[in-house]
Amino acid sequence: MLTFASDYVEGAHENIINAFQDTIYEQNAGYGMDRHSLHAAQLIKEECRCPEAEVRFLTGGTQTNQLAIDCLTGMCDGVISAEPGHVATHEAGAIELTGHKVITLPAVDGKLTAESVDRYVTAFYADEVNSHMVRPAMVYISHPSERGTIYSLKELTALSDVCRRHSMPLYLDGARLGYGLMSYDTDVTLADIARLCDAFYIGGTKVGALCGEALVFTKGNMPQRITAYIKSHGALLAKGWVTGMQFEVLFTDGLYYRISRHAIDMARKIRDGFIAKGYSMWCESPTNQQFPILENRFMEKLAREVGFSVWEPFDADHTVCRFASSWATKEENVDKLMKLL
Amino acid sequence: MLTFASDYVEGAHENIINAFQDTIYEQNAGYGMDRHSLHAAQLIKEECRCPEAEVRFLTGGTQTNQLAIDCLTGMCDGVISAEPGHVATHEAGAIELTGHKVITLPAVDGKLTAESVDRYVTAFYADEVNSHMVRPAMVYISHPSERGTIYSLKELTALSDVCRRHSMPLYLDGARLGYGLMSYDTDVTLADIARLCDAFYIGGTKVGALCGEALVFTKGNMPQRITAYIKSHGALLAKGWVTGMQFEVLFTDGLYYRISRHAIDMARKIRDGFIAKGYSMWCESPTNQQFPILENRFMEKLAREVGFSVWEPFDADHTVCRFASSWATKEENVDKLMKLL
Amino acid sequence: MLTFASDYVEGAHENIINAFQDTIYEQNAGYGMDRHSLHAAQLIKEECRCPEAEVRFLTGGTQTNQLAIDCLTGMCDGVISAEPGHVATHEAGAIELTGHKVITLPAVDGKLTAESVDRYVTAFYADEVNSHMVRPAMVYISHPSERGTIYSLKELTALSDVCRRHSMPLYLDGARLGYGLMSYDTDVTLADIARLCDAFYIGGTKVGALCGEALVFTKGNMPQRITAYIKSHGALLAKGWVTGMQFEVLFTDGLYYRISRHAIDMARKIRDGFIAKGYSMWCESPTNQQFPILENRFMEKLAREVGFSVWEPFDADHTVCRFASSWATKEENVDKLMKLL
Amino acid sequence: MLTFASDYVEGAHENIINAFQDTIYEQNAGYGMDRHSLHAAQLIKEECRCPEAEVRFLTGGTQTNQLAIDCLTGMCDGVISAEPGHVATHEAGAIELTGHKVITLPAVDGKLTAESVDRYVTAFYADEVNSHMVRPAMVYISHPSERGTIYSLKELTALSDVCRRHSMPLYLDGARLGYGLMSYDTDVTLADIARLCDAFYIGGTKVGALCGEALVFTKGNMPQRITAYIKSHGALLAKGWVTGMQFEVLFTDGLYYRISRHAIDMARKIRDGFIAKGYSMWCESPTNQQFPILENRFMEKLAREVGFSVWEPFDADHTVCRFASSWATKEENVDKLMKLL
Repeated sequence: MLTFASDYVEGAHENIINAFQDTIYEQNAGYGMDRHSLHAAQLIKEECRCPEAEVRFLTGGTQTNQLAIDCLTGMCDGVISAEPGHVATHEAGAIELTGHKVITLPAVDGKLTAESVDRYVTAFYADEVNSHMVRPAMVYISHPSERGTIYSLKELTALSDVCRRHSMPLYLDGARLGYGLMSYDTDVTLADIARLCDAFYIGGTKVGALCGEALVFTKGNMPQRITAYIKSHGALLAKGWVTGMQFEVLFTDGLYYRISRHAIDMARKIRDGFIAKGYSMWCESPTNQQFPILENRFMEKLAREVGFSVWEPFDADHTVCRFASSWATKEENVDKLMKLL
Repeated sequence: MLTFASDYVEGAHENIINAFQDTIYEQNAGYGMDRHSLHAAQLIKEECRCPEAEVRFLTGGTQTNQLAIDCLTGMCDGVISAEPGHVATHEAGAIELTGHKVITLPAVDGKLTAESVDRYVTAFYADEVNSHMVRPAMVYISHPSERGTIYSLKELTALSDVCRRHSMPLYLDGARLGYGLMSYDTDVTLADIARLCDAFYIGGTKVGALCGEALVFTKGNMPQRITAYIKSHGALLAKGWVTGMQFEVLFTDGLYYRISRHAIDMARKIRDGFIAKGYSMWCESPTNQQFPILENRFMEKLAREVGFSVWEPFDADHTVCRFASSWATKEENVDKLMKLL
Repeated sequence: MLTFASDYVEGAHENIINAFQDTIYEQNAGYGMDRHSLHAAQLIKEECRCPEAEVRFLTGGTQTNQLAIDCLTGMCDGVISAEPGHVATHEAGAIELTGHKVITLPAVDGKLTAESVDRYVTAFYADEVNSHMVRPAMVYISHPSERGTIYSLKELTALSDVCRRHSMPLYLDGARLGYGLMSYDTDVTLADIARLCDAFYIGGTKVGALCGEALVFTKGNMPQRITAYIKSHGALLAKGWVTGMQFEVLFTDGLYYRISRHAIDMARKIRDGFIAKGYSMWCESPTNQQFPILENRFMEKLAREVGFSVWEPFDADHTVCRFASSWATKEENVDKLMKLL
Repeated sequence: MLTFASDYVEGAHENIINAFQDTIYEQNAGYGMDRHSLHAAQLIKEECRCPEAEVRFLTGGTQTNQLAIDCLTGMCDGVISAEPGHVATHEAGAIELTGHKVITLPAVDGKLTAESVDRYVTAFYADEVNSHMVRPAMVYISHPSERGTIYSLKELTALSDVCRRHSMPLYLDGARLGYGLMSYDTDVTLADIARLCDAFYIGGTKVGALCGEALVFTKGNMPQRITAYIKSHGALLAKGWVTGMQFEVLFTDGLYYRISRHAIDMARKIRDGFIAKGYSMWCESPTNQQFPILENRFMEKLAREVGFSVWEPFDADHTVCRFASSWATKEENVDKLMKLL
């Protein structure tokens, strides 16, 4: 059955598979020291306009968040996240497993605000007994957020400023970063992110790769023993090029951007289709996740013919649903969906 | 430069790449619940003659060891390993990071003996202050071992007996399991391993896959919340079929065995070649890793023309080196190596 | 300067000091296996009307909470607490350090409600992707709560019922348990707590001891390796009788209750005094902590003459303050405080 | 029954109990910020001739070791210890629980040698794949050692030099430090230890206190958030003066030294007695632990009349036993023991 349930339901872009095909008997150095990983890191640094950036390739988002947070915070430190943040909700306690509390603040449109962070951290340092409290030592944001929204350059700059004022690294979870960068509504570039954040990751799993996330440290702040840390977290691939080569392909000839833009175009078509048929959208998402509000009986009927995610109840008779496009979404399938509405 | 440095220097078997090619636009359920992963698990259960087995796919050996040990031991419990065991030496503290001590016992031919385990555990339980000591709660073995040796059925049975007598799970690290199973000198089958061990993993990364290890629980002992445990350890792939499908291919039409046997044949050719040229072997390895003892000046000269691993000093003038074959080793390259001797 | 800042500002009851005086040269077994600890455990079991209870003595509240939660939950499990719960706010991440998330629910009068717990846990088990979420595996309550309030027998029974229905242990933090048990407004006995909770601790540090908390497991659920767990958490005293003997004294001739009642009487005098002088109380606390709302300038003036805790802002001109009595509060000092109002 | 089983079998020195008696109603600041703790820290800094030292008081040796190692090492780092070191053998995995491997090296007379440390660490940094290995990041020694032996000034200086050359902190476990300092055979002073080590603790539990160890950081290397770290490890006493005041007493008028010397004198009397009766000693211990070798049948007979520790088998017919004196050992009891030989 056709599905729009998520952006990880298809395989990988053919350029990636072809690269694997072409290199079956190529012999490479292990553990990420291969030519493809080094080349991919170089390409990413150039895209980031950040020659001092340092890049490591990991296999999944939770793994990357867990490692980055564990690297950038100290003992019993906490990380601030918006309440719906992935680290706070859907990582099965990965952050706590490594000893760190996720401190949640209310979200506005799925996003953390600089004001709420500033208020919380200022209050922490003003508290006489803060040695009995978890220190807010880092800020986590997801861009696009779990609701498909994106930070404006102004919002990102404000967060970055607050973080620097309080000496906290700002970390951006870019599981769907391509879909944020290629949104028609964004004014944030990869170079802005590299400049304003202390670390972030460029998501591959949801943007054309079989698996893979590129973790970027931008301020000379990658730990010296990073390879040992990756290894001890069970996250080091013997064949490091499995992830490195995928990013090499994605950042060659703008493929990452091109396939991301395709997903955006498909998402707009989905959104416009729902609106044209009279449906309300739960929030204005300029990225690849769209959240129409469906009448419950229609939702159940539709679910027999096409896959999507049931997000949360809207009212007694309606439910928020999620339809996600991806780099692999075929326009003919969007048309099929439109016919079902 | 041609290399025999390890068994993870090449990509993946073409059948695997072809499978990825064929399924680019196939839509699958996430997180290991896809048809390929389920099918692969079924194939493995059949090969193990163990219908009650439960299988999960992970991406690397250290990750799999870390998760399995954390799942099968309790708070502040330890795991017994031979001194050269991978968990004791080359996992950068992954086991300790999850709170478990690796208790090392001297190895015989790279292997743990049932007698030494029995002696240690018996002494532990006889000690009045063992509540101040780390409990030996699990036994870890690697098969083939880090020195290329393999457990005989008798040795494995003895270890299994000791473990059951002391209520400790026996866990087998099969990073190179194919090369053990297809050794001409083994009397141990996959079904034996499934019967005698409580858990083990079938290595893919070093035996034809891009990445992937199949963790098998054989005694109804897979934790109920295993998916959450995998997720919290950062080890859950969104596209679970990336590993599952590779095992589906490897266990179709005996591919896993066939390519493993090829590596064994290449290793024998390497070994016979060294011996024919008058070199001594450090140990008798019936698997894909061979350890010739090279005169130091010759070693340095050879290293300019072919890759291999420097293992450890043998005496003032000689060094133990490791030459590994793999599923991808070309006979013509072995011939090239032979000519260089 | 005279202070009512907390209930741990004085030393220990003279009977305890006398016991230490009398036993200087007495030779005892180590690590809690001494006659005093065993006797104290027996006395507590009798007070609890729970012959199957098992008791261990620790040195502080955070240590006890950390150990109990780590013992009674599994890997990456979470513990539910009211938002102001001590484990959620003032333990510097001790719970997360051992890998567990504190899941907070809104409090009513500082207390957790059975309804909110039931709703949360039911929703968790109904969620299809709960393998990506932290499992609510235990419920933590403090009695008296951080606001001085106490659970009624009905409330405690409802929480216990919810916990049993969802197979979660109910754990009660009794840092100030004496002050809850001896409140004039309670209908909950120690035997009720032992019957309704799966584990709890009887606070000594704040109720007459130099240091010490008695952790009680009531359902045959104390881990077999508890001594090793205590040791590995750094919580095992070589001279176990240092805590055990204090509880032996406290539970001899009803001392624990008698000194707790004294604190309650002093707290009522404080409360009545504030009310008589026209002050409002922030909440109705029937225990040893009283929270008058003070006008800010008066608060600053008062602070120059007597110690108390500044709790939180009430409005622009007023602040909630805490005055705590204890087993050691002298009536003449309460009189002095009253004169200052 | 009279016992020499350990040095923690008696209570606390009467001066300590008297201090508790005198301060029952004294009101103190919590969490170690009280006048007694501050005064005790000052006294210790003076004894150490180390004005920049920073001191914190904890309740037990394992707790102190766990915290110090966790504070002074990084993620997945290891600590080097002699094989019989307490952290390697009798702390129930406390070090691993906080994520650190204990790397053991063979002991000479129970002690670590500078040469073996240098060799190990040099080899580690020379190893190309040390990113897959646990970094030796700290050195742990116990003084006196678990066998009663002590480091000479020359040995300690050599260890300190090696540690500085490799940028590793040197940490000294002084559970029985008084007995080392007051040995007639030592040339090491407290000031030497403060100068040569980066951190160490002065044991109270085994030297006159009810409980308590003074952790001293000597090089401006105490973490800024140490109170939060102590709290999160469950090691912060609300009534911090319970430990602080004990050290205040112990370091007033040389009490710590005086009572330590008494234990040494009693140990010499025990040792001389055994030797006079023709017994061999297992090792030459110049401190409070003496290890005579007893014939097995005599050992069993003796054990019916006096307590001691059975250490380890010597040969088929003899066993190494431990007799410990302490600050509280009465000479008349030593005489009684002598009569039983």
